[in-house]
Amino acid sequence: MIKVVLIRHGQSVWNVENRFTGWTDVDLSADGLEEARRAGAVLKKRGYVFDAAYTSVLKRAIGTLWIVLREMDLMWIPEHKSWMLNERHYGALQGLNKAETAVRYGEEQVRLWRRSVHIRPPALDRTDDRYEASDPRYRTLQPGEYPLAENLEDTERRVLTYWQGEIAQALSSGKRIIVAAHGNTLRALVKHLDQIPGDGIADLNIPTGVPLVYELDDQLVPIRHYYLGEDGEIPDGTFPAHTG
Amino acid sequence: MIKVVLIRHGQSVWNVENRFTGWTDVDLSADGLEEARRAGAVLKKRGYVFDAAYTSVLKRAIGTLWIVLREMDLMWIPEHKSWMLNERHYGALQGLNKAETAVRYGEEQVRLWRRSVHIRPPALDRTDDRYEASDPRYRTLQPGEYPLAENLEDTERRVLTYWQGEIAQALSSGKRIIVAAHGNTLRALVKHLDQIPGDGIADLNIPTGVPLVYELDDQLVPIRHYYLGEDGEIPDGTFPAHTG
Repeated sequence: MIKVVLIRHGQSVWNVENRFTGWTDVDLSADGLEEARRAGAVLKKRGYVFDAAYTSVLKRAIGTLWIVLREMDLMWIPEHKSWMLNERHYGALQGLNKAETAVRYGEEQVRLWRRSVHIRPPALDRTDDRYEASDPRYRTLQPGEYPLAENLEDTERRVLTYWQGEIAQALSSGKRIIVAAHGNTLRALVKHLDQIPGDGIADLNIPTGVPLVYELDDQLVPIRHYYLGEDGEIPDGTFPAHTG
Repeated sequence: MIKVVLIRHGQSVWNVENRFTGWTDVDLSADGLEEARRAGAVLKKRGYVFDAAYTSVLKRAIGTLWIVLREMDLMWIPEHKSWMLNERHYGALQGLNKAETAVRYGEEQVRLWRRSVHIRPPALDRTDDRYEASDPRYRTLQPGEYPLAENLEDTERRVLTYWQGEIAQALSSGKRIIVAAHGNTLRALVKHLDQIPGDGIADLNIPTGVPLVYELDDQLVPIRHYYLGEDGEIPDGTFPAHTG
């Protein structure tokens, strides 16, 4: 039986400020650091060990991973960092306060931008400071590949490319893997693993900083999944949470 | 002109306790954490940027690297971790107090164990708890490759294998590199780069947590080297320091 552990980064400073984050490279909050520490402690207590780690090129995910690995005494394992595990790109919404945006555009519009699988947020302009295609961490992207805004399907496409090309192969070869990523990256992955059609994913929230364990068969089809708390396995759907 | 930055990990808890460390995986001390933070701040202030990082599989080096990368806002760059950059293996001395060992075996014997290029410390027995060949981080080693004790030449051999196979290639391809490693690993590397013959390296100390910049020509032959302090370049030989 194959296990993969997914973890959404701990709370970030923009989660606290209720701002759309996307690819903006914000730090973990003090609570986020502590969430990551607890996640690492729980994984260690439950006997988890990893052979390799996968994360994004955003510091809230990498920082979460580093704290988890430090707690587990596994700082030495290989880390693979890819923009393909970055959070959904939130386009021209990045940096805006979610409540103010709701006042300006209406609750329903914001709900669609946040939750719809198909609707993209307003696109970034290439002259916008938030268009960071020239950032060295994105220089491996093909021309036009740097997103101006993504819907969940866009995010799912690149996440699955990376999953199938890298992570699934590592799992199939027997490696024990942790993936430290983002709310929508992990929602996209869960949508794929559990074959959730269309907008069925809209109400799925993945809490920050709690290990989410997927048990998979040898075809990487999920058998069961659960969160890992200090007192053991926690069924899905019992966490209050926020995404985005 | 090619630049490579070498950094010895910040002070460890066994540096403080004056114990032979070698491959023992001890933590940074509070001072060591602060040394690493200052090193990262200095590198950032001086405009250094790295494309990739190389380190050992020991947490005092990895932890130093992580702090440096966090300070430089470069957490996203690829990290390569290899046992070949581990500290010199100190054999049966690992864990012993240096002063007590000097009382027991004599100052001169301990000086030779610490400083000689050719003399190995007493070998570990394979039944010793400190013989960690089965540790998962060492499973890629060939049978017999896990050291029972190393002299500086032994360390130099594996460090240079890694340098020539990995780091030199990356430098020659234009990558800007930081190597976060250990006192004797870096001494071995400096011995090679500066072509210091025999025991000529015996009195070279590399201070903990201070970036050591080597400027190299396109054949990777050193042009000059200096430490990087808060007020700029510091010539070699001006730091009081300890190794091992």
